Amino acid sequence: MDLSLAPADRSLDAALRRKIDQKTKPLGALGRLEELALQIGRVRGTLTPTLAGPHIVVLAGDHGAAKAGISAFPQEVTWQMVENFLAGGAAINVFARANGIGLTIVDAGVAHEFGVRDNLVDAKVSRGGTLSYLDGAAMTAEQRDAAMAKGAAIVATLARDGCEVIGFGEMGIGNTASASLLTHCLTDLPLPSCIGRGTGLDDAGLARKQALLEQALAAWPGRNNAPLDVLARFGGFEIAMMAGAMLAAAQQRMLVLVDGFICGAAALTAARIAADFLDYAVFCHASAEAGHRAQLAALQASPLVSLDLRLGEGTGAALAWPLVRAACAFLNEMASFESAGVSEKI
Amino acid sequence: MDLSLAPADRSLDAALRRKIDQKTKPLGALGRLEELALQIGRVRGTLTPTLAGPHIVVLAGDHGAAKAGISAFPQEVTWQMVENFLAGGAAINVFARANGIGLTIVDAGVAHEFGVRDNLVDAKVSRGGTLSYLDGAAMTAEQRDAAMAKGAAIVATLARDGCEVIGFGEMGIGNTASASLLTHCLTDLPLPSCIGRGTGLDDAGLARKQALLEQALAAWPGRNNAPLDVLARFGGFEIAMMAGAMLAAAQQRMLVLVDGFICGAAALTAARIAADFLDYAVFCHASAEAGHRAQLAALQASPLVSLDLRLGEGTGAALAWPLVRAACAFLNEMASFESAGVSEKI
Repeated sequence: MDLSLAPADRSLDAALRRKIDQKTKPLGALGRLEELALQIGRVRGTLTPTLAGPHIVVLAGDHGAAKAGISAFPQEVTWQMVENFLAGGAAINVFARANGIGLTIVDAGVAHEFGVRDNLVDAKVSRGGTLSYLDGAAMTAEQRDAAMAKGAAIVATLARDGCEVIGFGEMGIGNTASASLLTHCLTDLPLPSCIGRGTGLDDAGLARKQALLEQALAAWPGRNNAPLDVLARFGGFEIAMMAGAMLAAAQQRMLVLVDGFICGAAALTAARIAADFLDYAVFCHASAEAGHRAQLAALQASPLVSLDLRLGEGTGAALAWPLVRAACAFLNEMASFESAGVSEKI
Repeated sequence: MDLSLAPADRSLDAALRRKIDQKTKPLGALGRLEELALQIGRVRGTLTPTLAGPHIVVLAGDHGAAKAGISAFPQEVTWQMVENFLAGGAAINVFARANGIGLTIVDAGVAHEFGVRDNLVDAKVSRGGTLSYLDGAAMTAEQRDAAMAKGAAIVATLARDGCEVIGFGEMGIGNTASASLLTHCLTDLPLPSCIGRGTGLDDAGLARKQALLEQALAAWPGRNNAPLDVLARFGGFEIAMMAGAMLAAAQQRMLVLVDGFICGAAALTAARIAADFLDYAVFCHASAEAGHRAQLAALQASPLVSLDLRLGEGTGAALAWPLVRAACAFLNEMASFESAGVSEKI
């Protein structure tokens, strides 16, 4: 896929700021929503932006390294949770329904045969999930490129259907470990500050995860920090597909809702491939997963909410969407001092 | 009005916690939303709570002290903003529409004749707003009681119409000053830590506001910290009406969404009248208005979001409502490990 990306349109900044400042409210009184409104206007390139067809794409993939004991849950939970998504019973289903968000579930490389299912997108890059990065690269360069291209294709379909704002979620036992390795390699932050308890490791489990990830780094002879190389070495298929999808969404001038730690690792990868990606990204929440704050600090990102979530699936993006929608709505719908006949500051 | 209040129902706590823990997610992974789901279950007294008919009541009132120069905006902005609410152009209109919240606008004592208007509730306690607390009590005990009773009556009507969750907003030039005095008297925090820039005072304006509020405290010969006395001395009609409405809502077992600094002062007053009020209150956002954090700390309240808002009108409550709705939805709609056939932690 094409990895080039133009920055968002800053030519309207002065006009957008003027429009925001003339709304019937004290100057700056909508705080973070005012920054968000400016960003939305930039991304969409207009003073009257819309954010039609909000959609979350949940990508699932299995990780070879999961079998080495880096998670509190068994690997089969990946496919079982995909079934839960398809049945509508997971947290992301509930939050997407509650907030009017479309949902697409994608098999990016789960180690399970789902058969033909009408509400599951089969984008399997490999039938068995990634290989273990303890023994070599998690995926080949071809698999990484295929994953990214499949992500871009999913976005292209949604764009054709009118989607202007997109969020991503993920499911994959072992993927916080993968995200930790990506974060470490792409930010140069110390490895321990990039590692957390994932789905709930105890102290012994956390120590084991740290030792295994040190081992994974030591096992990479050609170690470097080129984002595409790091992605192939340590990525999951769901993370590679998401990075491709995020870049494609930004190319389409969609606003991109970034969920927590794992989606943050995909966003970090996208930003290292094309720095202007950050123009299009809204960091939705600060996860309780240790390592997310380090990742956010490295990206100089300040997320919208902080609710101690550590679930993934795109739940933080789904929960933050009404704030983004509200920012867009006030820009379009609020009266100005002049139009409402309200006196200005003395 | 009756000021007594029973605590929320804790008899279901163990069952609610079990239900939350058995949802298909790592233990505790929904963070703040899990605490919120527990609170909702307690308030509604059931394992399957609903929060039907979400509604925000915006109360407007004028303050005698506003003429002394405690605000960056002229007093006429109070009625002009009420007209903006009635026309649907204010921030609270936009956010209520975006998030499916009903809106009621109430004249609690604006110094303006609106005439008969079909979408304005006339609950005027006095035609001229409060008197200036620089010269005496802002309102009589009878006016305070009338304001509280009118607030309770508005809530009773909404309850009859099926409202189970209610938020409040306010408009009143000068009401951050009133809220500062209430916060100081009801928390014993130093006055300066309770005072902020309101709608945008500069340094000189802030110094003037501080001096005037010192003067207001010195001018109260029988000074005490009984909540009803403090309310009559320094309150606005909109704040007194809100305190009565909040208590009435809790009596009806509604969940009460508390907005920022001024609504927080009403909630603080309600909590000092009946401590169990806090069982029913959800503190929606941390305002950028200095003094709000002090108020929240005194109440040991940890708000849901922190977006640097300082607009009032109930906007923070309207923006936080989707999070509250999501907490209720996951409790009702998410699958359990057993029902979804997902493996539990190893």
